[in-house]
Amino acid sequence: MNTGRVLIITADDFEDTELLCPMNRLLEAGYTVDVASLQKGSITGKKGYTVDADLSVEELSEEPSRDYDLLLLPGGKAPGKLRENDKVLDTARSFDKAGKPIAAICHGPQILISAGLLKDKQATSYTSVAPELKDAGALYEDAEVVVDGNYVFSRHPGDIPAFNREIMAQLA
Amino acid sequence: MNTGRVLIITADDFEDTELLCPMNRLLEAGYTVDVASLQKGSITGKKGYTVDADLSVEELSEEPSRDYDLLLLPGGKAPGKLRENDKVLDTARSFDKAGKPIAAICHGPQILISAGLLKDKQATSYTSVAPELKDAGALYEDAEVVVDGNYVFSRHPGDIPAFNREIMAQLA
Repeated sequence: MNTGRVLIITADDFEDTELLCPMNRLLEAGYTVDVASLQKGSITGKKGYTVDADLSVEELSEEPSRDYDLLLLPGGKAPGKLRENDKVLDTARSFDKAGKPIAAICHGPQILISAGLLKDKQATSYTSVAPELKDAGALYEDAEVVVDGNYVFSRHPGDIPAFNREIMAQLA
Repeated sequence: MNTGRVLIITADDFEDTELLCPMNRLLEAGYTVDVASLQKGSITGKKGYTVDADLSVEELSEEPSRDYDLLLLPGGKAPGKLRENDKVLDTARSFDKAGKPIAAICHGPQILISAGLLKDKQATSYTSVAPELKDAGALYEDAEVVVDGNYVFSRHPGDIPAFNREIMAQLA
């Protein structure tokens, strides 16, 4: 049995399929998936799906990358709120420092921009996020999936098949 | 490259993730996915996601099971409309006759009930569909996934990880 563990950080107004389809893919493969949000409890996506946040980001350890195999950042309006939270940014930095996989889709890369992690990285994002991605020093590419080392990026829900494929490749 | 092909039959008011997550899973694995509906063109799920129906069910061949490796029937309110369409029922019968995989989730099994295919089959479905499943002679089980030969059944969106796992096992 797979004993791996994945951390999703998201919040209300997440893009529903960008959370649910990767989560279902990871559960299918036997991973335990923890959802962390600004507060523990139910969160609601843009389209109305609800997901239980298992813990608040404040409950994460000092180095969350020690507890998880991958950090997943879905899109929607959630990253716009999360990027202002220091614990969220420190968590992203913990995964970066440890060289552990970080997968961000749509508006998810906004968190990585605020954490100062994307300079000189090949990356993609939702179209409207591209300008700030470039301002942060990332090398923007308009592709369904962009992989740079332990980072995986996609643009929107239509890219989920390629996004999930590269997530699973990172974990293999 | 995977040259397999899967047929999804659905309609307006499909349960969004029951269509999108399995479709994304199959696309990830390299399958071509055709969506057939009562009419060709855009259809809209209960939560508002839109999907393009590549063809109308009338455009399917005489024996659609020759053209596809698996038939997928998502839930929502769509199966309630589709079960009254003879071409939909004949398509399900074609897969049954050929012994090819049929995967149905939530209200999806309603189509198989109307096609007269579930007598003495082990099956599951959305709770509210269980009585008519039993009336049709199926052996109902309240489990996240039930596999009987080339048939795969699940109950609701929370079962998608197990549902997709068994879909992929059927195709392996």
